Amino acid sequence: MSGEKKRLAELALLVKGELVGDPEVLIGGLADFDDAVEGEITFVADLKHGARLDQCKASAIIVPPALTGISGSAIRVKNPYLAAARIHALFLERPFVATGIDARAVVGHDCLIPAEVAISPLVYLGNRIRLGQRVTLHPGVVIYDDAVIGDDVVLYANVTIGHHCRLGNRVVIHSGAVIGSDGFGYASDDLGRHIKRPQVGIVQIDDEVEIGANTCIDRATFGKTWIRRGTKIDNLVQLGHNVVIGEDALLVAQVGVSGSVTTGSNVVIGGQVGLAGHIHLGDRVMIAAKSGVIKSQESGAMVGGIPAIPQKDWLRSSAVFAKLPEMLKELRELEKKVAELSRTMTPDETDNHGGNE
Amino acid sequence: MSGEKKRLAELALLVKGELVGDPEVLIGGLADFDDAVEGEITFVADLKHGARLDQCKASAIIVPPALTGISGSAIRVKNPYLAAARIHALFLERPFVATGIDARAVVGHDCLIPAEVAISPLVYLGNRIRLGQRVTLHPGVVIYDDAVIGDDVVLYANVTIGHHCRLGNRVVIHSGAVIGSDGFGYASDDLGRHIKRPQVGIVQIDDEVEIGANTCIDRATFGKTWIRRGTKIDNLVQLGHNVVIGEDALLVAQVGVSGSVTTGSNVVIGGQVGLAGHIHLGDRVMIAAKSGVIKSQESGAMVGGIPAIPQKDWLRSSAVFAKLPEMLKELRELEKKVAELSRTMTPDETDNHGGNE
Amino acid sequence: MSGEKKRLAELALLVKGELVGDPEVLIGGLADFDDAVEGEITFVADLKHGARLDQCKASAIIVPPALTGISGSAIRVKNPYLAAARIHALFLERPFVATGIDARAVVGHDCLIPAEVAISPLVYLGNRIRLGQRVTLHPGVVIYDDAVIGDDVVLYANVTIGHHCRLGNRVVIHSGAVIGSDGFGYASDDLGRHIKRPQVGIVQIDDEVEIGANTCIDRATFGKTWIRRGTKIDNLVQLGHNVVIGEDALLVAQVGVSGSVTTGSNVVIGGQVGLAGHIHLGDRVMIAAKSGVIKSQESGAMVGGIPAIPQKDWLRSSAVFAKLPEMLKELRELEKKVAELSRTMTPDETDNHGGNE
Repeated sequence: MSGEKKRLAELALLVKGELVGDPEVLIGGLADFDDAVEGEITFVADLKHGARLDQCKASAIIVPPALTGISGSAIRVKNPYLAAARIHALFLERPFVATGIDARAVVGHDCLIPAEVAISPLVYLGNRIRLGQRVTLHPGVVIYDDAVIGDDVVLYANVTIGHHCRLGNRVVIHSGAVIGSDGFGYASDDLGRHIKRPQVGIVQIDDEVEIGANTCIDRATFGKTWIRRGTKIDNLVQLGHNVVIGEDALLVAQVGVSGSVTTGSNVVIGGQVGLAGHIHLGDRVMIAAKSGVIKSQESGAMVGGIPAIPQKDWLRSSAVFAKLPEMLKELRELEKKVAELSRTMTPDETDNHGGNE
Repeated sequence: MSGEKKRLAELALLVKGELVGDPEVLIGGLADFDDAVEGEITFVADLKHGARLDQCKASAIIVPPALTGISGSAIRVKNPYLAAARIHALFLERPFVATGIDARAVVGHDCLIPAEVAISPLVYLGNRIRLGQRVTLHPGVVIYDDAVIGDDVVLYANVTIGHHCRLGNRVVIHSGAVIGSDGFGYASDDLGRHIKRPQVGIVQIDDEVEIGANTCIDRATFGKTWIRRGTKIDNLVQLGHNVVIGEDALLVAQVGVSGSVTTGSNVVIGGQVGLAGHIHLGDRVMIAAKSGVIKSQESGAMVGGIPAIPQKDWLRSSAVFAKLPEMLKELRELEKKVAELSRTMTPDETDNHGGNE
Repeated sequence: MSGEKKRLAELALLVKGELVGDPEVLIGGLADFDDAVEGEITFVADLKHGARLDQCKASAIIVPPALTGISGSAIRVKNPYLAAARIHALFLERPFVATGIDARAVVGHDCLIPAEVAISPLVYLGNRIRLGQRVTLHPGVVIYDDAVIGDDVVLYANVTIGHHCRLGNRVVIHSGAVIGSDGFGYASDDLGRHIKRPQVGIVQIDDEVEIGANTCIDRATFGKTWIRRGTKIDNLVQLGHNVVIGEDALLVAQVGVSGSVTTGSNVVIGGQVGLAGHIHLGDRVMIAAKSGVIKSQESGAMVGGIPAIPQKDWLRSSAVFAKLPEMLKELRELEKKVAELSRTMTPDETDNHGGNE
């Protein structure tokens, strides 16, 4: 907790919620339902916690409209989960502290670095790099030549940014992520040897993108691999060369996206999904975890399975899959029965048929 | 080999095995069956090597009870594989060498660091960090503020430990692993934009846990992500926020565990398995490689497939899956036959029926 | 572009292609079909671009034999994709610049390092390491004791090479890859606790191998994990202990290979594939993305699915999988029909049968 307290009325205003109870209650932080203590606010995302409201020690609760019978102070709001995220972030806000460039960092020549930055020891910056205002570089970060980094970017420990790559404003990249490694492109000769295709494009990452730990985003063969505004990418994700991910996408951990895949905005790709190369996902496509998608998908499609089919079909087929041995047995029994019926009706013909088998 | 030799009798005692042959044979190390030379011990984990015993050049062999007709010296023991691990470890034991804190390491303020440590060049320690006795930190390790590291911990090159995370004793973490990155938690607004939920919990890793290269373990949203005593995690594994893995678990490479999954002890999770969020695995649950588990599993369950079902059912269904085209053909033929039979028996009725289709 | 221009005739000779048009055209670089400008060469890998040849602004085009009606200058060659890779690489060739050992790198004792190397700041070299000619080590690289690195090797930022590991000539390893982490090997005792098996082998990587970002290759338990000449491995791949990958293989991103798997040459393993331990893949085996292979495969096999079966069977079975609910319904209807037919024919008998159900 930062120590600075906020009036409940102020918090209600921030999230455009309806104030219930005492507008003057002072709140110093946000905590989980079961851990919140006096002086804190908490939230009820679903109604199942509603029954336990009397056990809550928080000074105020963020609740959904459907939850009635609140005895204490509260903020009533359509999306308590979202309101909690905003209020929690408010309490955690810290002013940027410009520590400058630590003497134990390594900085190349012709870099453009504003005074207001925080560059840790053991950071390596190549040549001709441009950093925005209030950039934070943690230890072990390596930025190659000619990269451009926007304002308020945070790169955690051991992140690598390849040469000429471009990051927008408020980009956050977690430890160990590699941006701008070579795409996996080879041409094979008559002997089956693989000749590397030079990878001369870049990676461009737009504003408000967040990228998880140890995730890899390859540079384009030509042109750019492009992650558009607001997209959030989890840990250990692989994005191939020339991929374009639209705005406000969610890519869950260990997703693999082959080269030249493009997507619209607001796609949601479940964990461990694989996308085949050169396909397009329209806006708001949702892909169930572990699926393998080999065809382009129209906007709004919800798909699952390997290869992916409409999610509801996949669920139904999967249910039948579990019954396959039984189905096979039934089929065999039915075949016997039909053969028997057939024999009963036309004894001569079926006898002949049986002799042929 | 360390040079120090052990009497075979001493090794037999260590692994509570039955000594066969000469107790005074001197052994200086352990090697593979085909590579072992005189002065070394080797082991036979299964009986198929038994037939080749006469080809073995080792001075002694660790054998299972069922293997008879040993002519040379041996240790007979229920689990030769386990005995070999223990004897091999004995020969490789080295006393800890305290090199202190290298001058080219970076150490913040108010850290508690005992004299008996080995901190390499290019290590970064933040502020208020507590290290246990005999901690070894390899180059490129980054430990953030307020972390607590137990005794005899080894962190290999470029490992990151997030702020406030806690490691027990004898924890080993391989290169590039990231402990304590932010959980993947967002709330979405009406425009489909994703607002980050602050991730204010920690990661706690208990005694004797080993974690593979480039594995990622996210900090909790609130509270802790928790890896319990003795659990072994392979490379490139992803563990989401608030996951709790019980004691003595084995998680094979590239497993992905979604947020808030909890497990009992001794679970075994095969390579590339994915677990959906908020489920629980009971003690000793075993999950076949590549499975996707979407429901909680009772203690002792063995499951496989996507979505996972009992492993034996999945194997049987998979066998039938390969016959699906044939089954479909048979079904179609049967339909024809039945339609024909139907027609033969009741010509008028089936004509009508046919007309409706 | 390097600035140095080449005559078209010279480029045609390099790729053993047929020259069309003016041999004296000067070319300064290679670009994509739609981006190439005057003074550059481009390529047409498939015939669909052929129709747009007149829109191309390049001074020359590399075309396949089947493409006729070229009005400008061109190189006609069997594999334009391969020719383009070779010509592009020619234009990008740079002489090695030996910068020596930066003063901010850390080098242990008894290393053998030629004068012609480029060792960045913040590199860590242990003891008794041998580097070949023209080795380039980027910032954050950590090489442990007794490793041997061949000529013209490039290790990008934060790569780790384990002790005693051996790299051949012209090996390229991308950022964050970990070579020589411990294999995942444990023996379990009666209490279900896991006792580590010492991993005392090495990793050997032969000439011209390229390894992707954040990929992990474990050292052998005994002996060596071995990646043979010319093999290309994508990002986030996991190779277990004692794996042997043959020559000229392609392993796409996020593949997981269990311990002791061996392969012939020229295998192609699709993204996110998993291979079970101890199996062998013959030469030229191809495995479809996301498959799980649990049995050895003969040379030339093309397989897919979990568990993998011949790829063409898997495709056919998958097509039927999508129809399973329909199939089940048809089967049930057929059962009813047959029961009815049966009843019609032999009313007494079927009545009895019905009563048993």
